[in-house]
Amino acid sequence: MGKTNPGRFFEDYAVGDVIRHAVPRTVAEGERALYHALYPARHALYSSDEFAANCGLEGSPLDDLIAFHVVFGKTVPDVSLNAVANLGYAQGRWLKPVYPGDTLRSESQVIGVKQNSNGKSGVVYVRTRGFNQVNEIVLEYVRWVMVRKRDFDAPAPETVIPDLASVVDPADLVIPEGLSFDDYDFELAGEPHRLGDYEIGEKIDHVDGVTIEEAEHMIATRLWQNTAKVHFDATFREDGKRLIYGGHIISMARALSFNGLANAQMIVALNGGAHANPCFAGDTVKAWSEVLDKVETVAPGVGAIRLRLVATKQGAIEFTYKGEDGKYAPEVLLDLDYWALMPV
Amino acid sequence: MGKTNPGRFFEDYAVGDVIRHAVPRTVAEGERALYHALYPARHALYSSDEFAANCGLEGSPLDDLIAFHVVFGKTVPDVSLNAVANLGYAQGRWLKPVYPGDTLRSESQVIGVKQNSNGKSGVVYVRTRGFNQVNEIVLEYVRWVMVRKRDFDAPAPETVIPDLASVVDPADLVIPEGLSFDDYDFELAGEPHRLGDYEIGEKIDHVDGVTIEEAEHMIATRLWQNTAKVHFDATFREDGKRLIYGGHIISMARALSFNGLANAQMIVALNGGAHANPCFAGDTVKAWSEVLDKVETVAPGVGAIRLRLVATKQGAIEFTYKGEDGKYAPEVLLDLDYWALMPV
Amino acid sequence: MGKTNPGRFFEDYAVGDVIRHAVPRTVAEGERALYHALYPARHALYSSDEFAANCGLEGSPLDDLIAFHVVFGKTVPDVSLNAVANLGYAQGRWLKPVYPGDTLRSESQVIGVKQNSNGKSGVVYVRTRGFNQVNEIVLEYVRWVMVRKRDFDAPAPETVIPDLASVVDPADLVIPEGLSFDDYDFELAGEPHRLGDYEIGEKIDHVDGVTIEEAEHMIATRLWQNTAKVHFDATFREDGKRLIYGGHIISMARALSFNGLANAQMIVALNGGAHANPCFAGDTVKAWSEVLDKVETVAPGVGAIRLRLVATKQGAIEFTYKGEDGKYAPEVLLDLDYWALMPV
Repeated sequence: MGKTNPGRFFEDYAVGDVIRHAVPRTVAEGERALYHALYPARHALYSSDEFAANCGLEGSPLDDLIAFHVVFGKTVPDVSLNAVANLGYAQGRWLKPVYPGDTLRSESQVIGVKQNSNGKSGVVYVRTRGFNQVNEIVLEYVRWVMVRKRDFDAPAPETVIPDLASVVDPADLVIPEGLSFDDYDFELAGEPHRLGDYEIGEKIDHVDGVTIEEAEHMIATRLWQNTAKVHFDATFREDGKRLIYGGHIISMARALSFNGLANAQMIVALNGGAHANPCFAGDTVKAWSEVLDKVETVAPGVGAIRLRLVATKQGAIEFTYKGEDGKYAPEVLLDLDYWALMPV
Repeated sequence: MGKTNPGRFFEDYAVGDVIRHAVPRTVAEGERALYHALYPARHALYSSDEFAANCGLEGSPLDDLIAFHVVFGKTVPDVSLNAVANLGYAQGRWLKPVYPGDTLRSESQVIGVKQNSNGKSGVVYVRTRGFNQVNEIVLEYVRWVMVRKRDFDAPAPETVIPDLASVVDPADLVIPEGLSFDDYDFELAGEPHRLGDYEIGEKIDHVDGVTIEEAEHMIATRLWQNTAKVHFDATFREDGKRLIYGGHIISMARALSFNGLANAQMIVALNGGAHANPCFAGDTVKAWSEVLDKVETVAPGVGAIRLRLVATKQGAIEFTYKGEDGKYAPEVLLDLDYWALMPV
Repeated sequence: MGKTNPGRFFEDYAVGDVIRHAVPRTVAEGERALYHALYPARHALYSSDEFAANCGLEGSPLDDLIAFHVVFGKTVPDVSLNAVANLGYAQGRWLKPVYPGDTLRSESQVIGVKQNSNGKSGVVYVRTRGFNQVNEIVLEYVRWVMVRKRDFDAPAPETVIPDLASVVDPADLVIPEGLSFDDYDFELAGEPHRLGDYEIGEKIDHVDGVTIEEAEHMIATRLWQNTAKVHFDATFREDGKRLIYGGHIISMARALSFNGLANAQMIVALNGGAHANPCFAGDTVKAWSEVLDKVETVAPGVGAIRLRLVATKQGAIEFTYKGEDGKYAPEVLLDLDYWALMPV
């Protein structure tokens, strides 16, 4: 009685609160191998210690999305157990590569609350930070979720809505220490295209598709210690379907984007993102990208490309993602806006 | 002709025989990552090197059930290839944590035999020990199985039934060297409940459920090199079903028990266990626990809690597991009685 | 536009060309654990550092087929993206064991081309070499594939057909430095049979079967960074089936062959191979072997056994694989001819 975690409700969040999330996690070569087994990931910097060393790093870091999923997974029991919807992301930055053997933990600060007009739920904004074993911040991002109230009669808190820029300023991108693309090997990386070869507004169909299996999305989601029952328990929803963790689609689409964006090596910022429609086993995921911006950085040979990554399921019309009404088409699974580092 | 292993039959076991099982196995970070991917495992001591170091260990050991499954898997070709049923466990003790890089092998001593009255099979009792690369015993347990006779006319051996206590005496529990829960971080561990917060007789519903997939139980079972065909070959049983390895249910239930027993960190003894009913893909596994006993130990801040862990499948009535006839309800998959270490 | 890889067509290959394949890969304990999880692999030399050290190696290498699949996977975007059929293998040799931490990359030299009489496709022969991080060749093999022409009107190249021996000469087998089976522990290896116990012409039914799941073959295929869409996209073929990567069948059959060939430890040569029929999820794979030859080597206690490994699916008649017309029976999936090292 009372030993299990009921999760937090809307009235349990107060602006300024810091939640120290449970279950730190040491990540190593095993997580890397599983990531390559679950997604068609081929970016060379995350595949080869030699390639990464040639780019000035100490070795191949774990995929940036491994870091994201591990840090995110820890927040689920405290932030989204009673969430009705995951509404958005903003101001995400990767600050430090994660290497095999690092131990990650997460903290979230409540930075905004707004009760809905129906009085039954509200929106909570948190800034989550992931730390490594020497307490360096490896990653931070803001997300906001709609959370149920426990007691509909509880008074509404004062509304606080954080000021969130729609894009991370290129000046705020953090380039990993030592990174240089001066000796970048395009042949080994898989494609010849450098930053200068991409045009703003250019769209790239990543061609390949992957049909999703129950076993795979559950293995992936558990790997990040995200144990929300809606992903695992076929008896939980009335339709008997298991909802696929949105992060699974992020990783799938990003891995598919290798074909056409093989040199968009490191993710350094998450400007925004929406899980537009749910995905279920049996859906076939494809992806396309649009070049939104590109800039140079101070690191040798290193530029940054801003990309919209759209994941779709079968029947999707290429390069269209919103209808005339401004709403996402039903075939769109994901709309992600991020900065990646690419050789100039 | 004659090159493949036909397995042993009842008359091939004699009390006192020691069987040195084949295929030693080096276990490392890969096995840890897969364990976290296959089960919703979140106990902090097995997730984070930092957390484990704060508890006085050299790093995060591999899950106690990884050790169990690896040691058990090696016994299958010699003990249970011709088994009709896996009848029980007793006197299991974990004697030494297993760390990444350790190499495990197994030996079993036959400690009892009893031919069945039908003359067609008999019960064999073995004490199995798992060794690491420096020949320390990391784990030992007794199990008994019903095994077919090769020749029904073979004479019955003298009946020997070992004297097996129904519970491991708390005085015999082995606490890992250096273990201390004096600086235990309950927040990072995920729950505030310490040994004193649990009442003997208390029952805990672990809430979450997992629907089992063929790919997942086969990946898990192979990982422990348990290659018994009934788990893998859909053409083997007349109903076309693949029987799920009982150990998969043990690990699933133990991982689910995190929700309510996050601080029951290390398994130190297996008092008994029964695989009450078979499990097949598509079943949704849930779990509940009952506190059977609790004691303090000599290690700083370390207590031991004795738990009954019951895994059920869909339709299970909570907290009921045996009918008035003393038989397991058909929804009960597992009834496991174990000691775990918990902060006092 | 034009950023994604269209693959090479027949007229893009010229004899003498060397293709340096993309995406080097560091392989480690994670890949080993996954290999054991995906296949019922039990050969002791690849399971235990201690066992391998007792055989004179520095530790347990990664399975020879991990090396093969990683090296092969890299060639897919350049060699078989537009292939109609994978026609054969020859002159494969493993030259250096691959250890956890090694980084592999691949190069292929075009050694033959022959346009088909229909003018629409042709056969391309390549010799592929896998290199480690210090540029040692770890593996080499020849394969030939039928590839579509881009332009049917393009002129036919001069036909060059390489001279390929049907078997690797035993004198050319490379024994890993330091390997000795003088202290080989047959009990730990799992079977007592040494080279002298096998007769040329002997056939061994490996008994066990494994029913293939979509999730498993996709996890395996991605692990080797083979991302050919026919393996992953259920909407790609008209029948909605995903074709299983032939290498998945090779590894499954080789792992099943442990039962009867536990001491055929290291694969040192691939004489030939054919993927006789396609395999799909739901098929149950079994395997048998025929002893084709056996020889001694200069290494202490080390012999070599030449084996035909045949994988079949349900309904297969044991030990038959070709009809009277010389064609493979429809139940035959794989016919592989290889040399393995075994204690004399």
